[in-house]
Amino acid sequence: MTIKIAACIGGGVIGGGWVARFLLHGWDVQLFDPSPNAERTVNEMLANARQSLPALADVAMPTEGKLTLCNSIEEAVTHATWIQESVPERLEIKHTVMAQIQSACLESAVIGSSTSGFKPSQLQEKSEHPEQIVVAHPFNPVYLLPLVEVVPSENYLESSYTQEAQRLLTSIGMKPLLIRKEIDAHIADRLLEAVWREGLWLINDGIASTEEIDDAIRFGFGLRWAQMGLFETYRIAGGEAGMKHFISQFGPCLEWPWTKLMDVPNLTEELIDTIANQSDAQSGHHSIRELERIRDNNLVGIMRAQKNYRWGVGQLLHEHDQFLATQQPESQVTDDYAEPIITHETKVLPAWIDYNGHMNEMHYLQVFSAGTDQFMRLIGCDEAYVENGSSYFTTESHICHIDEVKLGEPLTVTTQLISHDAKRFHIFHRLIHSSTGHVIATGEHMLLHVDLNETKVCPTSEAIQQTLEQIAEQHQQLSLPEQVHRAIGKKA
Amino acid sequence: MTIKIAACIGGGVIGGGWVARFLLHGWDVQLFDPSPNAERTVNEMLANARQSLPALADVAMPTEGKLTLCNSIEEAVTHATWIQESVPERLEIKHTVMAQIQSACLESAVIGSSTSGFKPSQLQEKSEHPEQIVVAHPFNPVYLLPLVEVVPSENYLESSYTQEAQRLLTSIGMKPLLIRKEIDAHIADRLLEAVWREGLWLINDGIASTEEIDDAIRFGFGLRWAQMGLFETYRIAGGEAGMKHFISQFGPCLEWPWTKLMDVPNLTEELIDTIANQSDAQSGHHSIRELERIRDNNLVGIMRAQKNYRWGVGQLLHEHDQFLATQQPESQVTDDYAEPIITHETKVLPAWIDYNGHMNEMHYLQVFSAGTDQFMRLIGCDEAYVENGSSYFTTESHICHIDEVKLGEPLTVTTQLISHDAKRFHIFHRLIHSSTGHVIATGEHMLLHVDLNETKVCPTSEAIQQTLEQIAEQHQQLSLPEQVHRAIGKKA
Repeated sequence: MTIKIAACIGGGVIGGGWVARFLLHGWDVQLFDPSPNAERTVNEMLANARQSLPALADVAMPTEGKLTLCNSIEEAVTHATWIQESVPERLEIKHTVMAQIQSACLESAVIGSSTSGFKPSQLQEKSEHPEQIVVAHPFNPVYLLPLVEVVPSENYLESSYTQEAQRLLTSIGMKPLLIRKEIDAHIADRLLEAVWREGLWLINDGIASTEEIDDAIRFGFGLRWAQMGLFETYRIAGGEAGMKHFISQFGPCLEWPWTKLMDVPNLTEELIDTIANQSDAQSGHHSIRELERIRDNNLVGIMRAQKNYRWGVGQLLHEHDQFLATQQPESQVTDDYAEPIITHETKVLPAWIDYNGHMNEMHYLQVFSAGTDQFMRLIGCDEAYVENGSSYFTTESHICHIDEVKLGEPLTVTTQLISHDAKRFHIFHRLIHSSTGHVIATGEHMLLHVDLNETKVCPTSEAIQQTLEQIAEQHQQLSLPEQVHRAIGKKA
Repeated sequence: MTIKIAACIGGGVIGGGWVARFLLHGWDVQLFDPSPNAERTVNEMLANARQSLPALADVAMPTEGKLTLCNSIEEAVTHATWIQESVPERLEIKHTVMAQIQSACLESAVIGSSTSGFKPSQLQEKSEHPEQIVVAHPFNPVYLLPLVEVVPSENYLESSYTQEAQRLLTSIGMKPLLIRKEIDAHIADRLLEAVWREGLWLINDGIASTEEIDDAIRFGFGLRWAQMGLFETYRIAGGEAGMKHFISQFGPCLEWPWTKLMDVPNLTEELIDTIANQSDAQSGHHSIRELERIRDNNLVGIMRAQKNYRWGVGQLLHEHDQFLATQQPESQVTDDYAEPIITHETKVLPAWIDYNGHMNEMHYLQVFSAGTDQFMRLIGCDEAYVENGSSYFTTESHICHIDEVKLGEPLTVTTQLISHDAKRFHIFHRLIHSSTGHVIATGEHMLLHVDLNETKVCPTSEAIQQTLEQIAEQHQQLSLPEQVHRAIGKKA
């Protein structure tokens, strides 16, 4: 097991987001931030992250790491293998901090800078070990958005530090985008800056308000850009004629006399006031904390929506699940079946709560399904087995609701094998509140083994039969739950 | 019932999208497009739309309208109350088409133009009834994306045509954004153009490829922009200090020497080839049809994700559901209970299919839940009743799977009342393939009437008891389904 200690220098909106992402991925974090507000900011960020980041995964997250507040940069970087600098955007401050970090850190540590404006060669200027320093520019909220622009300077494009940066950032669920040629403001912020300027003009000239501009984005192309970018979207618009045809057609627009795009609006006090007042009218009825929660809930939903099709960020989440699964303690694969088997652990997610504040009933079945899937993997009906042409299908389910759960409460599913033969198994899940141990609901399921090519019932493999037998030997000694064999509307 | 006839002049990617949106909202559409490919394009568009647009709604859509291919503009606009012009972007063509439309159309009809480049005053130039002409600029895919920029010229900002345009576009599920001052390219395309120019520079200078630019968008700010726009996002980034503070800080960046933003890249053959080749490498392994389906599935998921929280496009979808519900034929509220009651109609949606191609089991419960909700409303347990402090909770569910369904197949839920008393009811749902009549699955549910304030069981209202009694009198004469009172693993 590698040591997972990250140092975070600076704990503002960006630094705090890094702290949360590392902690929730099982890293211990050593934070240095001289501000008296740092601890509060980081804890608020962490509370948000705990509610949202685990909701992206379909497997258990690692045990949360430990946060240590440090009194100096030197203390914070001790033993750290990753150091993330998120201090204010002034070059002389960055140089001073880099020097302090490098005086005390491991030679093998990677130093990532959250800078949005500076090029890596600028950060490396006064350093004796410039190869250690790489731009790792994330996006707010850092604990949820996967993109991180990784910019080594051109000398270190192939260095072991650059490679390690990409590997490590991937392991905490991010999408490192390697930028081969350094440039002011990297890539994404240049695109944002272009829109920002045009937006300022539209407000300045009284064409549109902040709310109208936001609506022009989120009811239109913003929905496209959550899944495809600019070019793939246009590729579709171009149709069968292809991208070349599309651009050649679109090209002439570049010469349209939209001269405003050539100039920079003057950011007067008046324009600042106009924007601030419009923004208050648009969003002032929500506090920033409320907006953060709304944003995070939506981001989880938007990202999970793409998980269904393993597209873009959805494919990334799927791959990260597979990675997280390899990080689980070995104990999940066990042949100690003296008790019902723990097959799923999760929390009650925001998207599972209906407008009445209750967990919607379909999500009880979702949680039981996850337990069933894990039980199947456990007995040997895994992805490889299914690809080979057979699997188990649920033929009957019976759910009993016993108690309620609230948003964020931790849940455990345990699974007891009731009976089995060569063609089916009958299991019983308990949905348990992980802290109190109360049973919230039960799920009883019959599954049939099916030949996927002919869609007909057939016997399972020898190996699966043996594992089922092994489990049954011990589970037969457990008492039969009262909900088993229950019929609705009849006394059991 | 108002006559719902729309004329579509032009049936390309945009015109065809309009055709699909109108048809699926119950409008008859009269299409004129002289191209020999028009019929094929429109039918392909319609096939995509049928798979995706209904998936946004949680209530039944109207019965699809009738498509008529017309031989002339004059024929197409006859009796039409909405006319949508989507012909090529050349002003002299637009003028000719407008004149032909206005020579034959109703005086009360609104003429919307899909133009992305022209101002309404330009389109109105040669018209005797300029007030009829309004820009209604949509976004691809028109059948899914809600945004439509409505631009009257400044003279007609308050006209009845402008008002009717907004009302009507809302009724087909769109978000009309009224643009008060006309401007070249309206709002959204100006923002897109800004990003496009910057993107071209990045490619031209070899900083990033099309794929890298797309990834910089869809793994980062694109995810934010699907729900909030530019300004609301920055409001959050600014934190408690407020928008004014944020802009004042951000302002200096406007003077950064990003001179590239001031200039227009030269769209040489070489740059066009570079982009086309990069795009092929990025997306060439998918056909355009595949990309469209992927895009549409993702869009549905991304929009529905926001429906959970009734945010942005999610709030729009929710309001549109309420509107669609008012459009349903009265027959849904009936006191003829001679047969099981039809409580839900839907189709198998893309998001319900797992990677094995099967409808995931949780969605069977979702469909049954929708049937239960409708049954509750039918007996008088509607939103107002719940707000008054009591409701029914499911305490037990039993699902039997009988057959499989495929993507897009139409489903009907029927509900039979098995038994009831003052504190509960016991119902039985059949999930039926609407075309074949086959029973796909059954759901048996016991619900308890609960005081929401004290979370304890209590008697229901007199009125609900009477309705339940009324239904029971007739449903008692139906035969008892074999799955009722069934226990898993025991013979019934």
